Amino acid sequence: MQGFIPPFKTDPINRQVILSRRPMGSPVAADFARRDAQVPSPGEGMFLVRNLYLAADPVQRGWAANPALTPLGEPMRALSVGVVLDSRDSGIRPGDIVYGFLGWQDYKVATRADLLSHIEKPLAPLSAYAGVLGMPGVTAWLALGDIAPPYDGAGMLVSTAAGTVGSVVGQIAHRAGAYVVGLTGNDDKVKLCLADYGYDAAYNYKSVDLASVLAEARPEGFDIYFDNTGGPILDTAIRAMARHGRIVHCGTAATPSWSPPPTGLRNEREILMRALTCGGFVIFDHVARFPEAIERLTDMVLAGELKFHDHVEAGIDRISGSLEALFADSNAPKTLVYIGED
Amino acid sequence: MQGFIPPFKTDPINRQVILSRRPMGSPVAADFARRDAQVPSPGEGMFLVRNLYLAADPVQRGWAANPALTPLGEPMRALSVGVVLDSRDSGIRPGDIVYGFLGWQDYKVATRADLLSHIEKPLAPLSAYAGVLGMPGVTAWLALGDIAPPYDGAGMLVSTAAGTVGSVVGQIAHRAGAYVVGLTGNDDKVKLCLADYGYDAAYNYKSVDLASVLAEARPEGFDIYFDNTGGPILDTAIRAMARHGRIVHCGTAATPSWSPPPTGLRNEREILMRALTCGGFVIFDHVARFPEAIERLTDMVLAGELKFHDHVEAGIDRISGSLEALFADSNAPKTLVYIGED
Repeated sequence: MQGFIPPFKTDPINRQVILSRRPMGSPVAADFARRDAQVPSPGEGMFLVRNLYLAADPVQRGWAANPALTPLGEPMRALSVGVVLDSRDSGIRPGDIVYGFLGWQDYKVATRADLLSHIEKPLAPLSAYAGVLGMPGVTAWLALGDIAPPYDGAGMLVSTAAGTVGSVVGQIAHRAGAYVVGLTGNDDKVKLCLADYGYDAAYNYKSVDLASVLAEARPEGFDIYFDNTGGPILDTAIRAMARHGRIVHCGTAATPSWSPPPTGLRNEREILMRALTCGGFVIFDHVARFPEAIERLTDMVLAGELKFHDHVEAGIDRISGSLEALFADSNAPKTLVYIGED
Repeated sequence: MQGFIPPFKTDPINRQVILSRRPMGSPVAADFARRDAQVPSPGEGMFLVRNLYLAADPVQRGWAANPALTPLGEPMRALSVGVVLDSRDSGIRPGDIVYGFLGWQDYKVATRADLLSHIEKPLAPLSAYAGVLGMPGVTAWLALGDIAPPYDGAGMLVSTAAGTVGSVVGQIAHRAGAYVVGLTGNDDKVKLCLADYGYDAAYNYKSVDLASVLAEARPEGFDIYFDNTGGPILDTAIRAMARHGRIVHCGTAATPSWSPPPTGLRNEREILMRALTCGGFVIFDHVARFPEAIERLTDMVLAGELKFHDHVEAGIDRISGSLEALFADSNAPKTLVYIGED
């Protein structure tokens, strides 16, 4: 696929989705507006990217709230996959695929500091580089490796098990020989966990008594919990851990707002008595490790060990609604928006 | 001191403090009773110990609540320091000092499985083998080493900073070059922290606005928090941590009862966003490592790098009241009871 450049319009405009209003809590579509701008030209050491896939990610809640990260009137800070059209950086060539902080817009003049990955030879569908081979997949790979490597026979629990991170966690754990139990929020996702994502068992946490289900699923307790939710699921999971177990704190999807500070069960005694190790993971601490992680994940994809289902829609006007849906509906699929055909 | 055996009565009885009633919540003196028993004789592979120092430790709350650990009518499960009087174990000689699960009583027929340490050549006052060279000191040494080794320039926070564990933590951290801040519950202990226990700063958490004090004491945040309290102090400390910091969960002194389950601030987002590592530590997982740890701690004592103040009273009738005071008064000193002179 290297060197392929789609036939874009000869007299293009740069369609942008800008932040027009600072969100109150979770962002909604009405916080954004469309604007047309000129296509910029790259200066020395820079390159011009035509974005192909725009992503809507939970992390954008924080980016939209932070004037230093997303000034009002500027394109929304976002991770996108694009193709390089023109380059004045000798290490980046036209036709190369890139993934990084390219914003909700058609065109971006970027430098390497904006990139999370630079794919000279794409081996998977380009959308995958924003998903299983992008931030979510790399998060799963590195968070597991750093905090709680799965191993043969380990009892492993994963929340938002069918999500973009959880689905990769399940398959990495399965490959390592762990007994993997997934928690998700609807029955279709339970089926997907069992069919495609490597889970030995999966439950819709909304329709079961979670403490009983976990005690039955793993009477000896879980050795690893990969937590994408926090909240009451975390409280229950901690109390289902085996001694000397490990917890990866990777997401807090269960808590819609941290202001005012929410309360819950005190968990320090469980951590102490069970001699647990708990680690927080922030993917942006690990930007330099993306290439290596993507290489490993690509190996798994090519070996048929890593399945993924990208939900792709087309049309730049859909992106802000996709972000709103992420926060409004816990069962909304994570959507990528393709903007190469317009 | 090896080989020294105090001149005990020629026709001795074995005074015991038994658990006469299962405690409701924290144990009180009225849960225990005195009983006189015969002095037992060691069988093959066993040895007879005359206890010299009885300890009252917070961990005994759990032991007193558990019929499997302390049956009603039996001597209270307890850690004691004693001298071997008679031995049918070829590795244990009369005159040796031992520390372990010897109970609240004058005499115990023990096996090596009852011991946490066997001191052939005592180099410190014998009471120290129940304190700075016993469970509290070894807890400080191993929990730090395993979960959060202090290092030159690290910002380090310690709760119950003048306690039997905290006072050792402060000095180990000081020796490693850390900037050590202690929290304690009265002004006399603040002075002790600063004068003797290696703290660069110390505060009475009851008389300050803790969040402001921590922000001023270490504006860049703490790299290590050694938590002996849990509760609101933990909640505030987590929010004063530097990114990539480490928390040792070693005690939960702030929470008098876990039934019904207490609530507090949700902390998972702090752990995640700050990319913290939190580890629970239970000393009885590490019994095999006592000799090595005691050797290192003894080196520090002999080098004058590890100060301690044992609070010793005399008379076996004082021990149950000492345990009650531990839970009733957060400022009660941890008392050892000497019973060798009676």
